[in-house]
Amino acid sequence: MSRFSFNQITAKHWGLEDLVKGLVAADVDKVALWREPVQEYGLERSAALVRDAGLEVTTLCRSGFFQAPDWFDDNRRAIDEAAALGTPVLVLVSGGLPPGSRDIAGARRHVADAIAQLVPHAAAGGVTLAIEPLHPMYAADRCVISTWDQAMAIAQQHPVGQVGVTVDTYHLWWDDTALDKISRAGSRIAIYQLADWVTPLPAGVLTGRGLPGDGCVDMAAFHAAVAQAGYTGPIEVEVMNEELWQRPGPEVLAATVASYQAVT
Amino acid sequence: MSRFSFNQITAKHWGLEDLVKGLVAADVDKVALWREPVQEYGLERSAALVRDAGLEVTTLCRSGFFQAPDWFDDNRRAIDEAAALGTPVLVLVSGGLPPGSRDIAGARRHVADAIAQLVPHAAAGGVTLAIEPLHPMYAADRCVISTWDQAMAIAQQHPVGQVGVTVDTYHLWWDDTALDKISRAGSRIAIYQLADWVTPLPAGVLTGRGLPGDGCVDMAAFHAAVAQAGYTGPIEVEVMNEELWQRPGPEVLAATVASYQAVT
Repeated sequence: MSRFSFNQITAKHWGLEDLVKGLVAADVDKVALWREPVQEYGLERSAALVRDAGLEVTTLCRSGFFQAPDWFDDNRRAIDEAAALGTPVLVLVSGGLPPGSRDIAGARRHVADAIAQLVPHAAAGGVTLAIEPLHPMYAADRCVISTWDQAMAIAQQHPVGQVGVTVDTYHLWWDDTALDKISRAGSRIAIYQLADWVTPLPAGVLTGRGLPGDGCVDMAAFHAAVAQAGYTGPIEVEVMNEELWQRPGPEVLAATVASYQAVT
Repeated sequence: MSRFSFNQITAKHWGLEDLVKGLVAADVDKVALWREPVQEYGLERSAALVRDAGLEVTTLCRSGFFQAPDWFDDNRRAIDEAAALGTPVLVLVSGGLPPGSRDIAGARRHVADAIAQLVPHAAAGGVTLAIEPLHPMYAADRCVISTWDQAMAIAQQHPVGQVGVTVDTYHLWWDDTALDKISRAGSRIAIYQLADWVTPLPAGVLTGRGLPGDGCVDMAAFHAAVAQAGYTGPIEVEVMNEELWQRPGPEVLAATVASYQAVT
């Protein structure tokens, strides 16, 4: 359990104070936080809450969305939030196509340009930008960065430690070329996240992910690949699932811990 | 309009006799047929119906599903059906993972083996097996062949004309490496199909495709790529859309023709 981190979205409706209490009670010492609940509770208050509880914040999720008009200012704020929370990693979901656009190649170039513009501020704050390739089913409306290769190509334009890549089993499991490349990615792996692929997909395809072990992803193969790369950092379980969200926070945490232990 | 082919699934609920009459009335001389409605109407009757109407059958959709216990016999029957209909192309949707499996690499190897076992019968019948890479969101439950590269790697184990690849814009648009490879695929392109990507995706993600021009796919880029490859064959519009299916067949055909003309 020493590498386990509970990603806040897995218990979306669990209030931040109760979440922190619940993690401490369950002897979990790592958490990934999301921007919206942190902003709602207050950034400084949130930072103090987790610090006083002895929790390590493994990532802040998530910034990016580079097609939004205010992407530059909003991402700089997100970097500041990550720094204030003491987390070394800000996860980037790069956004979909601009309204009415059919130029996905152009949108991908814009993501690379945008990240380059953010790197100085992130580096100054000691925050690694962790580009997350999202499953290609999100390419139009959520993230034009769809593959490990695309994320790595952008990350490699910058020093290790300033820009990295998020390994999320849910998004990469289908790609027959990804595991081998992950195993050779060394310090470019900024964070490692687990979720499982279950079908049928729900409308909107966002909230039907499974706890590790509940679907068809070969988690052992991913563990081996990140280990071969030399990654020894936290392992987040990040599951968006409508049914899971209906359950009380402590139950969700217990189910998440059990699933984590079963696959690691 | 000389290359336009109406894929039967686009007007799913249009009976075969009415479909044939409707196509003739609209001066459309090419159609792609589906196995289930052909079997329902009768194979020989269907063949006579389209032959007497002067229709060219561009493909038979679809066989494959290599995880099914009777895959070998069923695919041989599909080849026979294609030959009886006089179509040169049988589209293959390769099937998902076996129940409970997490071995997607093994499932992909099985697809390659299965196709190799079917090639002699297909070649004898003068039918090209057209492997269709389906969008990675179908990798678990519908088709483990998710990319152009995977389909081509299998096709290239066999002579051109015996095994080819289906270019479907809906399944390939997100892949930044596909267009360039398609443009160099020469005679491996067995058929070219159009559908557009529209969001949000419906539950099950099968029946929310758009008519060409209604979504975010750069159809012009695909046209250029298949042209550069030297493909001059039929262009099918194949759209599975629940709302479209509720409309009368002639309306669906008219909308499909209009969308085709707008993007070609």
